[in-house]
Amino acid sequence: MVWGVAATAQDAPPTTEEVLASLKVGQDTLWVLVAAFLVFFMNAGFCMLETGFCRQKNAVNILAKNLIVFALSTIAFWAIGFGLMYGDGNPFLGTAGWFLGGADNSPMTGDDYKGIFNALSWTGVPLNAKFLFQLVFAGTSATIVSGAVAERIKFVSFLIFSLILTGILYPITGHWIWGGGWLANLFKDANGEVTGAFWDFAGSTVVHSVGGWAALAGAMLLGPRIGRYSSSGASAMPGHNISIATLGCLILWLGWFGFNPGSTMALDPAAISHIAVTTNTAGAFGGVAATFTAWVYLGKPDLSMVINGILAGLVGVTASCAWVTIPWSAVIGLIAGIIVVFAVTTIDGLKVDDPVGAISVHLVCGVWGTLCVGLFSEGPSEAEGALYTAGPLRGLILGGGFNQLIPQIIGIVAVGAFTLITTVLAWFVIKAIVGLRVPEEEEIKGLDLSEHGMEAYSGFLKES
Amino acid sequence: MVWGVAATAQDAPPTTEEVLASLKVGQDTLWVLVAAFLVFFMNAGFCMLETGFCRQKNAVNILAKNLIVFALSTIAFWAIGFGLMYGDGNPFLGTAGWFLGGADNSPMTGDDYKGIFNALSWTGVPLNAKFLFQLVFAGTSATIVSGAVAERIKFVSFLIFSLILTGILYPITGHWIWGGGWLANLFKDANGEVTGAFWDFAGSTVVHSVGGWAALAGAMLLGPRIGRYSSSGASAMPGHNISIATLGCLILWLGWFGFNPGSTMALDPAAISHIAVTTNTAGAFGGVAATFTAWVYLGKPDLSMVINGILAGLVGVTASCAWVTIPWSAVIGLIAGIIVVFAVTTIDGLKVDDPVGAISVHLVCGVWGTLCVGLFSEGPSEAEGALYTAGPLRGLILGGGFNQLIPQIIGIVAVGAFTLITTVLAWFVIKAIVGLRVPEEEEIKGLDLSEHGMEAYSGFLKES
Amino acid sequence: MVWGVAATAQDAPPTTEEVLASLKVGQDTLWVLVAAFLVFFMNAGFCMLETGFCRQKNAVNILAKNLIVFALSTIAFWAIGFGLMYGDGNPFLGTAGWFLGGADNSPMTGDDYKGIFNALSWTGVPLNAKFLFQLVFAGTSATIVSGAVAERIKFVSFLIFSLILTGILYPITGHWIWGGGWLANLFKDANGEVTGAFWDFAGSTVVHSVGGWAALAGAMLLGPRIGRYSSSGASAMPGHNISIATLGCLILWLGWFGFNPGSTMALDPAAISHIAVTTNTAGAFGGVAATFTAWVYLGKPDLSMVINGILAGLVGVTASCAWVTIPWSAVIGLIAGIIVVFAVTTIDGLKVDDPVGAISVHLVCGVWGTLCVGLFSEGPSEAEGALYTAGPLRGLILGGGFNQLIPQIIGIVAVGAFTLITTVLAWFVIKAIVGLRVPEEEEIKGLDLSEHGMEAYSGFLKES
Repeated sequence: MVWGVAATAQDAPPTTEEVLASLKVGQDTLWVLVAAFLVFFMNAGFCMLETGFCRQKNAVNILAKNLIVFALSTIAFWAIGFGLMYGDGNPFLGTAGWFLGGADNSPMTGDDYKGIFNALSWTGVPLNAKFLFQLVFAGTSATIVSGAVAERIKFVSFLIFSLILTGILYPITGHWIWGGGWLANLFKDANGEVTGAFWDFAGSTVVHSVGGWAALAGAMLLGPRIGRYSSSGASAMPGHNISIATLGCLILWLGWFGFNPGSTMALDPAAISHIAVTTNTAGAFGGVAATFTAWVYLGKPDLSMVINGILAGLVGVTASCAWVTIPWSAVIGLIAGIIVVFAVTTIDGLKVDDPVGAISVHLVCGVWGTLCVGLFSEGPSEAEGALYTAGPLRGLILGGGFNQLIPQIIGIVAVGAFTLITTVLAWFVIKAIVGLRVPEEEEIKGLDLSEHGMEAYSGFLKES
Repeated sequence: MVWGVAATAQDAPPTTEEVLASLKVGQDTLWVLVAAFLVFFMNAGFCMLETGFCRQKNAVNILAKNLIVFALSTIAFWAIGFGLMYGDGNPFLGTAGWFLGGADNSPMTGDDYKGIFNALSWTGVPLNAKFLFQLVFAGTSATIVSGAVAERIKFVSFLIFSLILTGILYPITGHWIWGGGWLANLFKDANGEVTGAFWDFAGSTVVHSVGGWAALAGAMLLGPRIGRYSSSGASAMPGHNISIATLGCLILWLGWFGFNPGSTMALDPAAISHIAVTTNTAGAFGGVAATFTAWVYLGKPDLSMVINGILAGLVGVTASCAWVTIPWSAVIGLIAGIIVVFAVTTIDGLKVDDPVGAISVHLVCGVWGTLCVGLFSEGPSEAEGALYTAGPLRGLILGGGFNQLIPQIIGIVAVGAFTLITTVLAWFVIKAIVGLRVPEEEEIKGLDLSEHGMEAYSGFLKES
Repeated sequence: MVWGVAATAQDAPPTTEEVLASLKVGQDTLWVLVAAFLVFFMNAGFCMLETGFCRQKNAVNILAKNLIVFALSTIAFWAIGFGLMYGDGNPFLGTAGWFLGGADNSPMTGDDYKGIFNALSWTGVPLNAKFLFQLVFAGTSATIVSGAVAERIKFVSFLIFSLILTGILYPITGHWIWGGGWLANLFKDANGEVTGAFWDFAGSTVVHSVGGWAALAGAMLLGPRIGRYSSSGASAMPGHNISIATLGCLILWLGWFGFNPGSTMALDPAAISHIAVTTNTAGAFGGVAATFTAWVYLGKPDLSMVINGILAGLVGVTASCAWVTIPWSAVIGLIAGIIVVFAVTTIDGLKVDDPVGAISVHLVCGVWGTLCVGLFSEGPSEAEGALYTAGPLRGLILGGGFNQLIPQIIGIVAVGAFTLITTVLAWFVIKAIVGLRVPEEEEIKGLDLSEHGMEAYSGFLKES
């Protein structure tokens, strides 16, 4: 025997019920880990996308940011983020579970669960699997910011901000929604039963909008790159490596098959198959819609719009992917693909310089996706073949009125206000202590040589 | 409770039999989805491979084609392709199941299945999982074409062709073979029992040859790139980024672990392990064989031949991977690796300009792989440890005579004739309406600037 | 019915026990294959990492080496490597199982197993799954060498060395540790019971150090690249594509989620979740530690140090990932990240030219990781919630004394001595027959044009 992990001492052979339970835990754990690996790989997607869309003189800097940010997120989310988000506490934040410590008898579920992470007691996988899956989500939110502040932010300032975002701010609003906080228990009747709640299946708001608000705050406070806007209008600063940017988009699309279906955190065959198809359908329609919108509106099938259209569709369906039918997922993606083209041009018109379109994709389409829960959800049903038995109320477009739309709007506003205010504060504090922006001559020279002392493409001749 | 998907209302606790069945469905679904994700990722593989093998002035165009083509395939295959391929109908095409509509009680199997997708009733996974797995296959066929027509086709013309291929043509021949059509019931005895059938496990013909025939039609009708062939012979037009081309090859190799073993569409441990090993062995032998063939024949270990040799081995074993032993898979791959080197030079000698070698890899080795079923299959057996109980008859080389080789040849000819004729027609119709080829000055300038208004590697100095 | 693989003839319906066993085998097989696919993908990671860290004039050569090496490993490990490593034999090598031949009734386990691969009888998956998982590990060892000998080794010489390493040398030391050889049975009491053994969970020594020793031998015998060291000191030879190098690092990180947790070779939910988290934690701490060490020590946050720090943390935790707590995995990774920075500068100071830092990452941190088993292991325990019941004794730092550290040191020395001596011999034999190093003018011109007749980035202008 080389490895001894699997060996366990058992006096009596396990009963059939115990074996069945253990097989179910095995399946669920395998699914959650595979999904976590796919979401982890989105780090590579964001890294290639953002680097490719920026100029080569800043490539090393963006690569370094995207690589180190997940390492920092791991530390921050392990130390305090996971406890703030999923530890037992009050409606506003968790107050237990630092460094994954404290009581926990996972994989027990429901009433059998005894521990301090009750908000995750519904899923029957080991605590470490729950943590890893939530960690890769937390990492995503910081990665979104990276693109919007690229090409002018100080390396150390971004690192500090990432720690604050993934360790504190993302977990707090996450607690409100996924940690059993106030948005998950928004309206109650006289008996204390929840009658209305904000719903976000895989994180259009929890992850994407939060990252997007932080990105907006950062991009506004930093100001545009030198030479980006002048009295004669905006100057395009084209990306230096569209090959890797496209690869990044495809890696992200792959990762979304973990992001959305994996958010079941249990191997429910009907649900994960359905979610995989709604996710893919929305991404496809988003890509096609953005392509043709850009073709008509800008005169060319701009590849960066194809890329952002796909991502817009994926972000757009993230909140509702488990609760809408496939045709509605197509509509959600299609509209997201149209929205993103106009969002990019509008934000550019407002002279908010977002080199990769992160605000348009993650914030604007994150808000759109969150609204979609209130517009297109099927509504819970016990009928055979129904999509879900517990979840958002029937959406407005399907005749459900505003019952679900109102909680969605409340959640969007609350999370937006909190994140915008706190991230602005965070950026200001960082600015006061270490500064936000590299000196002008360093920005012109490129951050690679000035901040990292190396260049990304040694040996190639570049335009000066 | 944040998510409600997993919750189901049950009056009585499920029986042991029901739990066992549900665990099996869970396993099978997880496997099919993981395999589908791997095959989806082959889009990134083809994208990097084809882009890297072409010139940098057309990189954006090839990237855009490869990115949007899967989005279009999603729409076309959802709307009509899946119904044409797997919907109940006649021996020539399916006539039900548009937009995944119509009766279906999956995951019930065999006689318990009641619905309109009887050709897929043998696999016990939800309909959405069946659809996603088949969709990513359909997307592959269009991606194969992309490489052969690169650097001179109009963007819009390729988009229209992709819709026709994945929405109509690929599903029709697919129906013949995988949809319960005439090739799956080729010979019958007096009692109507099938005594001989065309077999293609994972798609050497269904996917690769079909893509290859369409690529051949396109490359011939388009003609070679300007300057490629002159009276003084052929001019090499070397690829611009062999790093990403090699990455593409490795991503494709990874994807094949979903493509071939996943085609079980059920978690049969012995089968998927065996198929994973035959697949990998053939790819390895194909790569080594092509390397040394090129070394001897061309004088250098040409990296593009290493890449195409690996792909040749993988395509070659795709049809027979479940039905041949590991040593025979080595032989199949080895011969495919030799074939592809001579196919590339021969097709070049015929002045058919295929920038990435798609016709040699997918068509020539797809035909070879389809023949291999008739040459090397073990034959069905009920004996313990036998590879399979139902499937192709024993191959010629193993003493089975021509019983299986004849159906394979019939299938190759029938699918080839249908696809070549219909794709030629399709290309002609597209040519008549919007044209096929970009104007000469645009081709010389590069499609990136002329069709997309952007370049892939801004800031780098290039040869003019 | 299109596919017949899953169909089996059964006279009596299977019992509940048989179905339960078959579901367990299914789960385990799925997990082992998914892990194998992830480890396979590490080939792409190494390929991008090593290519990006070298100069563009040698890119094709490094790409070709990394691509063909796994194909060669497949052949060598199938033919003899797997038999030498896991076939029954004596304490020093296996003597059965060539070409996967010989008796085997997998997936039976323990006493029910009858066959010639008893060292793998503890895992209940089909032989082909065992083989594939072990094959992708073997491939890794050769890939490690590739980076250290890059930019000056003859292509054919590297191919021959890879065959020897993966076919013979790696399997022999592997047999000592994982194949039931002498290091797995190091100390016995009077009754023949094993009282002390060398433990290496996922291969800090078996894979990484072995590759690292072979790399050290190669780099020393080859000598430094022309112009690397002169009387005036060392000249930096910066990598040509840091974007793909960073992508490579992220692919490797992803692959490690198969490498370490997959080494359970069975779906043990608690173990694989724990190992996934210790692995990730060590990688994260390694990256952060190396970043700040380099920042302080070299004055800049050098991206190549961030990359190597992450890899150092991952290599460092590989031996002990199943047997240490998460906080100790953080310590292991943190120290590995500091070590690697000084190892890189020290090895450079010794004028051993290792273009990618492979020796520092895989050898130095592999040794460190192997020691960590003796320092930080929890010790086996039957208590509920214990990490493992059979495995290494309690480590020195946790109060276990030197009981486990001594076997670890013996293993490090024995494997190091054997691998260093045999690889030096292998390199010498290859040198005598075909030579090791390309001629000086070819090295200056670049190996791409001289050995492969092509360049990686055609159309770009480069520095001459």
